[in-house]
Amino acid sequence: MVYVTRKAHFSAAHRLFNPKFSDEDNERVFDKCNNPRGHGHNYTIEVTVAGEPATDTGYVIDLKKLSELIDDVILTKVDHKHLNYDVPELSGIIPTAENIARVFWQLLAPHITNGKLSSIRVAESDNNFAEYRG
Amino acid sequence: MVYVTRKAHFSAAHRLFNPKFSDEDNERVFDKCNNPRGHGHNYTIEVTVAGEPATDTGYVIDLKKLSELIDDVILTKVDHKHLNYDVPELSGIIPTAENIARVFWQLLAPHITNGKLSSIRVAESDNNFAEYRG
Amino acid sequence: MVYVTRKAHFSAAHRLFNPKFSDEDNERVFDKCNNPRGHGHNYTIEVTVAGEPATDTGYVIDLKKLSELIDDVILTKVDHKHLNYDVPELSGIIPTAENIARVFWQLLAPHITNGKLSSIRVAESDNNFAEYRG
Amino acid sequence: MVYVTRKAHFSAAHRLFNPKFSDEDNERVFDKCNNPRGHGHNYTIEVTVAGEPATDTGYVIDLKKLSELIDDVILTKVDHKHLNYDVPELSGIIPTAENIARVFWQLLAPHITNGKLSSIRVAESDNNFAEYRG
Amino acid sequence: MVYVTRKAHFSAAHRLFNPKFSDEDNERVFDKCNNPRGHGHNYTIEVTVAGEPATDTGYVIDLKKLSELIDDVILTKVDHKHLNYDVPELSGIIPTAENIARVFWQLLAPHITNGKLSSIRVAESDNNFAEYRG
Amino acid sequence: MVYVTRKAHFSAAHRLFNPKFSDEDNERVFDKCNNPRGHGHNYTIEVTVAGEPATDTGYVIDLKKLSELIDDVILTKVDHKHLNYDVPELSGIIPTAENIARVFWQLLAPHITNGKLSSIRVAESDNNFAEYRG
Repeated sequence: MVYVTRKAHFSAAHRLFNPKFSDEDNERVFDKCNNPRGHGHNYTIEVTVAGEPATDTGYVIDLKKLSELIDDVILTKVDHKHLNYDVPELSGIIPTAENIARVFWQLLAPHITNGKLSSIRVAESDNNFAEYRG
Repeated sequence: MVYVTRKAHFSAAHRLFNPKFSDEDNERVFDKCNNPRGHGHNYTIEVTVAGEPATDTGYVIDLKKLSELIDDVILTKVDHKHLNYDVPELSGIIPTAENIARVFWQLLAPHITNGKLSSIRVAESDNNFAEYRG
Repeated sequence: MVYVTRKAHFSAAHRLFNPKFSDEDNERVFDKCNNPRGHGHNYTIEVTVAGEPATDTGYVIDLKKLSELIDDVILTKVDHKHLNYDVPELSGIIPTAENIARVFWQLLAPHITNGKLSSIRVAESDNNFAEYRG
Repeated sequence: MVYVTRKAHFSAAHRLFNPKFSDEDNERVFDKCNNPRGHGHNYTIEVTVAGEPATDTGYVIDLKKLSELIDDVILTKVDHKHLNYDVPELSGIIPTAENIARVFWQLLAPHITNGKLSSIRVAESDNNFAEYRG
Repeated sequence: MVYVTRKAHFSAAHRLFNPKFSDEDNERVFDKCNNPRGHGHNYTIEVTVAGEPATDTGYVIDLKKLSELIDDVILTKVDHKHLNYDVPELSGIIPTAENIARVFWQLLAPHITNGKLSSIRVAESDNNFAEYRG
Repeated sequence: MVYVTRKAHFSAAHRLFNPKFSDEDNERVFDKCNNPRGHGHNYTIEVTVAGEPATDTGYVIDLKKLSELIDDVILTKVDHKHLNYDVPELSGIIPTAENIARVFWQLLAPHITNGKLSSIRVAESDNNFAEYRG
C-alpha cells in the first residue's frame, strides 16, 4: 500500500456559534471565533488516497486528476465564500475544522474510484488542524 | 544601521468592493473577492524597525516589546474580526493588503520611539503581499 | 473519529550526555550534541487528540483550551530554559526528542478529558522529529 | 514505541512515460509530466523509524547516523541526477513518487538495524507526496 | 509607494554548462550542476511591483491579473520544461538563477502598465535565490 | 546588479545579559532571555551578495562556494555551541540577533571577492530577525 496526498488551499470566512445557545453561551464557548460578522482563514486541505500503484502508470491515483476533482467537488463551493451562509452542504453545521473535514469526506469519497480515500486533513492555520479518517 | 523585524499573525474576514461602483463593476473589478458576505485570510504582518543597536542592550528595539505593541495597537483591533465592519480605522477604506499596510503604519509609527519604522508588510496568503515603506 | 492537532513552540538549550559514560564515550556517541555548555533549538510540538466532535460545539476538544493547557502544563516549564538543569520533570533523563516526547505525554495525558491523547510530536528542527503515541 | 523521522532533500530531473505506450497515450496519461527532455523537482524525503529509545542514549536511532545512511544509500545516487537515465535502481521503473518511495525503502531497509523502518515519504513539491509503509 | 508581490511556482530541469568550456572546466566550475542529462528544481518566483494604490480600487496592481500575466508570459514557457532545450528565450544562456531572473524581467516588464516592476526573485530551492532589480 | 542569497542554519544556546547591569536590571531588560543557564534557537542566516553575473558562468558568485565559505568562516564557530562562552569572536558582546549579524559581517566580508556583500540576516525564530547591511 502506498498513501498519496494532494494538498489544496482555499480562503473563506466563518463564524462559530450554535443557534440553540444563548448569546452568553456562544460567547463563553466560542469566544473570539463567535464574532457576529465572522472572521476568516487561509485553509489548507490534504487529501490522502491509499492503494497499489498501477503497473503501467506508477500511479495510485493521478494527483493532477485528484487535484481537479478537489477543485470541482470542494474548492468551487468554498473558496472565497462565507462558510456559514454560502455553502449549502455546510448549512446547519457548525463550521469547525472537525465538521468541515467530515463534510469534505462525504463530498469527495464517492468520486474516488482508484484507491481508497484514507484521510482528509483540514488546517485553519499553521497551528490548528483536524483530520478525519472515515 | 540594523533592520530588525517582528512577524505577527491574525485571522480576519474582508470583502473588496467600492460602494460607488455598480454591482457589475464591483464584480468585474474585484471578482471572487467581492463575495457579499466576505471571505477571509490568515494574515501575516512583518514590522521592520531600523536603527543602531544600543551599546548596553544590543537591541535596536526589544522585539518582545515591539510584539506587545503590535498586539496592543493592531492585533486587538483586527484579529478574528470582519475588516469591513468591525474596525473603525478601516472604515470607508477598501481593505486591500496595500491599504491595510498603510493604515497599520499610521497606527504603529507614533509608538516607535527606539529606531525608525522602516516597513510594514501585510501578507494575505503565502503568495500575495504588500509592503509599505512610509 | 476525528484527530485534532494543536502546534506549539518553545526555545530551549540542551546537552546530550550520559553521566555514566566516559568523556570519550559521550563524545563518540553524542558528538557535537555533547558540547558541555549546551546548544539549543526552536522546538515545535504537535499534540493530537482523537475523539468524536460534540454535537453542540463541533469540537473534539476546543483547541484554544488545548493551547492554554499546553502552555500551562508544558511551555511554562521549558520555554527559554536549559532542559538539563531547569526542568525537574526532565531531571536524570537524557533530553533527546524521543525522551522529551514521552515526558510531555506524561505531563499532558491526565489533563485530556475530552477525547483521548493520540500522539505528541517533538521537532528539534525542520529535519528531525520524534513522535510518541502512548 | 517512538517514531523518529529524519527529513532530507535532493534535486533531480525526471520524465513520466511508459515505453510500451504510444506517444498519444503517454501524452494523455502523463500530460505535461511527459515532456521528452524531462522536468525536475526539489524532492523532500522523510524516513521514519520506530522503536524503543535505548536507556543509555535516549535514541531510537541516532538521527545523525540515519542522515549519513540516507546520504550514502540514497542521496548520492539521485541528487542532481536525471532519475530516468542516471540511477540504475530506477531503471525500467516509471519514476512517480509512489515508485520512488518503494525503491528507496528497498535500498534503505536492510541498513536499519536499530528500530524498524516504518515509512518513507517522498514529496515532489509542497502539494504532492507519496508515503510507503512497507 | 507600496510594493506588492505575487509569488508563483514552476518545476523544470536544467543543466549548468558553458559550451565554450572543456569538459574538465565545466566539471570544475559547475560541479554536480553539470550532470549531462540535467537535474531539476521546484522554482519559486516573486514578482514585485511598486506604485501608489488607486483610490477607487485600493490596488497598486490587481494581483489576480498579475498572476495571470505571470502565467501567460512566463510559466507557460518554463513549467515542466527543460530550461536548456525547451525555452527559446533562454537559448544560449546558462540557466543560473541570476540569468533566469534577468530574462524573466525582460519578458514581464513590457506588460506592467500599472505601477513599475521593482524586482524579480528566482529561488531554485529554499536556500538559494537570485533577485534582479532592473 | 543581481542580488544572490544563500541561506544556512545552525543551532546554538545563548543568554542575553549585561555583566554591568544588576541582576534586577538584567531581569527587567532581558526578561526570560536572561535565564542563567541560557536557552537556544535554530538560527537561520541569509547572506546576500550583489554583483554582475559573469558572462562565462552566469554566476554573481558560486552559491556552492559561498555555502562552503559560510560553513568555514561562520558555522564551524557557532553550530552546536553556547554563543556566550564558546565563540571568541562574540566574547564580551551581548549575543542579540543584531550583534550576531554585525559580527558575522566582519567575519565574512573580507572573503567575498566576487561581488560585494550586501546584507546578512540572522533569524532567531520564524518571527524575529535582524538584518545588517554594512
